Amino acid sequence: MKKAPHDPFLYTQIAESIESQIQNDVLKVGDKLPSLRTICKEFGVSQSTAIQAYLQLEKKALISSKPKSGYFVCFSVHKFPPLPHSSKPFILGNNNDVDVLIQSVYNRVLGDDVVNLSQSIPSQEILPIAKLNKGIINAMRVIKGGGTEYDLIQGNESLRRQIARHAYAMQAKIKPDDIISTAGCSNALLFSLISVTKRGDTIAVESPVFFGILQLAKSLGLTIIEVPTNPQTGIEMDAFKQLLKKGKIQACILISNFSNPIGSCMPDENKKEVVTLAERYGVSIIEDDLYGDIYFGSERPKSCKTYDESGNVLWCSSISKTLAPGYRVGWVAPGIYKEKILQLKLNHSMSSTTLTHQVIAHFLESGRYENHLMKLRQTLQANLFQYLKAIGKYFPPGTSVSRPQGGLVLWVEFPKNISTTELYKKALKNKINIAPGKMFTLKNQFENCMRLSYGLIWNDKVEHALETLGRLSVLV
Amino acid sequence: MKKAPHDPFLYTQIAESIESQIQNDVLKVGDKLPSLRTICKEFGVSQSTAIQAYLQLEKKALISSKPKSGYFVCFSVHKFPPLPHSSKPFILGNNNDVDVLIQSVYNRVLGDDVVNLSQSIPSQEILPIAKLNKGIINAMRVIKGGGTEYDLIQGNESLRRQIARHAYAMQAKIKPDDIISTAGCSNALLFSLISVTKRGDTIAVESPVFFGILQLAKSLGLTIIEVPTNPQTGIEMDAFKQLLKKGKIQACILISNFSNPIGSCMPDENKKEVVTLAERYGVSIIEDDLYGDIYFGSERPKSCKTYDESGNVLWCSSISKTLAPGYRVGWVAPGIYKEKILQLKLNHSMSSTTLTHQVIAHFLESGRYENHLMKLRQTLQANLFQYLKAIGKYFPPGTSVSRPQGGLVLWVEFPKNISTTELYKKALKNKINIAPGKMFTLKNQFENCMRLSYGLIWNDKVEHALETLGRLSVLV
Repeated sequence: MKKAPHDPFLYTQIAESIESQIQNDVLKVGDKLPSLRTICKEFGVSQSTAIQAYLQLEKKALISSKPKSGYFVCFSVHKFPPLPHSSKPFILGNNNDVDVLIQSVYNRVLGDDVVNLSQSIPSQEILPIAKLNKGIINAMRVIKGGGTEYDLIQGNESLRRQIARHAYAMQAKIKPDDIISTAGCSNALLFSLISVTKRGDTIAVESPVFFGILQLAKSLGLTIIEVPTNPQTGIEMDAFKQLLKKGKIQACILISNFSNPIGSCMPDENKKEVVTLAERYGVSIIEDDLYGDIYFGSERPKSCKTYDESGNVLWCSSISKTLAPGYRVGWVAPGIYKEKILQLKLNHSMSSTTLTHQVIAHFLESGRYENHLMKLRQTLQANLFQYLKAIGKYFPPGTSVSRPQGGLVLWVEFPKNISTTELYKKALKNKINIAPGKMFTLKNQFENCMRLSYGLIWNDKVEHALETLGRLSVLV
Repeated sequence: MKKAPHDPFLYTQIAESIESQIQNDVLKVGDKLPSLRTICKEFGVSQSTAIQAYLQLEKKALISSKPKSGYFVCFSVHKFPPLPHSSKPFILGNNNDVDVLIQSVYNRVLGDDVVNLSQSIPSQEILPIAKLNKGIINAMRVIKGGGTEYDLIQGNESLRRQIARHAYAMQAKIKPDDIISTAGCSNALLFSLISVTKRGDTIAVESPVFFGILQLAKSLGLTIIEVPTNPQTGIEMDAFKQLLKKGKIQACILISNFSNPIGSCMPDENKKEVVTLAERYGVSIIEDDLYGDIYFGSERPKSCKTYDESGNVLWCSSISKTLAPGYRVGWVAPGIYKEKILQLKLNHSMSSTTLTHQVIAHFLESGRYENHLMKLRQTLQANLFQYLKAIGKYFPPGTSVSRPQGGLVLWVEFPKNISTTELYKKALKNKINIAPGKMFTLKNQFENCMRLSYGLIWNDKVEHALETLGRLSVLV
């Protein structure tokens, strides 16, 4: 595309290239054009040639300049009104549409005026953004090439050391070399599932369970058994034992601490028993311990990994729920599956994001993480109290709600006649986003349930949103 | 773990916790201990309690302080010498060991004194690190929460617009909405392969081919046919047509421009024909166009995507080979597979790394990328010339070498009796890292070949390394 700068028709060629981009919707009406400076750089031409090109487009009334802002596309040569997008029927109430529903809840570009109660992440105000930003600047200086280089395949050494140190609070014997860093916890779960199962295998999960786990398992061709789960103590041990005895499952995924969405925390004795039984029956445990650090009790709950002697537990976690979802920093301590997962990471992703992994390593090393967690727990616990109070006040009689001892989400069960899928649609019109219950199962159930994050700082707007949800719920 | 600060035995408990970490190898001899300040923060204790704890450990001679540096572990209670690591037999010459070989070439922590000719990435000196660092600071300020928030599932809007604009140089009609951002190109290839194949399917690839593609396809349970490939024009059209006619393959992966490792660039007419044929036979094309921007000719070569009218080509690329491998910024324009890949991205990774994707968006928008590419192409072309000259001078008679018109790697074919697996071992002892030919096949061939990156800036050290390789090659 680069031409010698003495070409007499150069500006025409530049103009034609841009006109063609407008014709082909690469540039749309209202889009800002590259600056003259950029055009000079990209085409290797003088400023006057760039100006000529833009003048030509202006003459055609395709672009126009705004003072101090630059050039904008003002007309497209398409003579007809734009074609409608391909239809994406959003017909709810049918179980096949759960995928569409999930994409709708998560993929929608929400305005700042929407109260988003659907995502289980803490709101920006609770995050130590300024400290993290400082950490970025520091990391950029400390690591070679400012993070442009590939990370080690196993992951940042300092990060792994800090995770091992941090994990010590739950009395699990994890060494730095036992850990592999990943792009968030979902990436850790993916590697774990691929390592311990093959297409056609059956796995057990809690019920209701985080939709990402269901979607992931489904995409790997696994059959999923949803096991009865108590909102306080987690997976029902009797049901789990039955499954093991029948030899039906090859692996199970447990959100052992403050399960998403039901909020349960498995008692220590259950964790221990699950680990012992799973090993006896040759079933691998993938432990999703994403919320364990957000405990409201006096100490960090233990994990299944704490009781793992043989390396049969793949412990997965991240800082996405406590610090910076957009950093993509997670990890897995995969026990005996370490070599398999190293190979997978090399093949699938080659490297983590070098910079953000270093930032988190240092954030943990400096003690800032513990410090932040202390505040986060306090804030979220206070939040939880307010949310529960408001639900009691505004939601219809007959509504039940979980009492999580940690984590970020509530599980709300409306009276049977209330459809949260309908509520979702009505709420969105009122600028409130929720996660309907049917997202958390493959069995077309929980139609009267929803997951509600209490990650948003409590204020009048949130209270008003809950009041509105209560009001709307009796209308659907 | 946190205790009330008035607990009289608090410092003992802190000391015990650290002692136990030393016992369990979480902290090893020589490791720096957390600062007193960190201990105070993490345990919520006073400075004097923290000092007491460290004094107790010092008395046991487990730790010692170094002036102005802090405390270090100086003795472990393990009485015995450390256990050797689990053995990882590195017996080469056997095809099953290719996985081990690849991990060895890539996973090894190399000292700064090693001349690394094995990785197809440009060296740090050629990268605009300072400008990228400025970009990080800028992005941190521009995006909400400094990049702590999840990115959009489809990816940063501005990045997608810039990629579409950039792709215009190869005359492919790609719109911002056709693109999905990914964690580098390997992630794009993974999503693409999962979308167009199922376990048991057969795919065609070039031969030799980037080992990551082979490993990825193998891990997805695919059968791989390695198709004869010309070092100038790429995949042999007759062989490809035969495959199509026999109805043997469901998809093919093509590194259409400056193939890794063989350096070929498919002529336009071949690209066009491949696209037409593949569509006729219902075979999907995954195009790995990772090197297309590093062309030494007068203009950017076109891609298969340029000729794709039906959406049957999944065009994958990234900035890992031109700008910042550690940023993990890649993308795919998946044609008709867009919805499938959006779903996969949601399930597998939820979000890209928000910060680095924004940095690259702005780098492209400002014209800095084009500017950088111009310099990069010049440098690499000059490099290529020097490398080729040195190979001619120092390598044994009968050695042949590719003449890439772009990209980053050379394919060297030694006389038949020379084993590059043996050369690899000898070279590593001489602090030179190469990529033996057998990494690039599943068929136990190319034993006398190797891939050599010319991404390292030409200097005496590199010349000496090539001279050494030449000398060693006749000894193996």
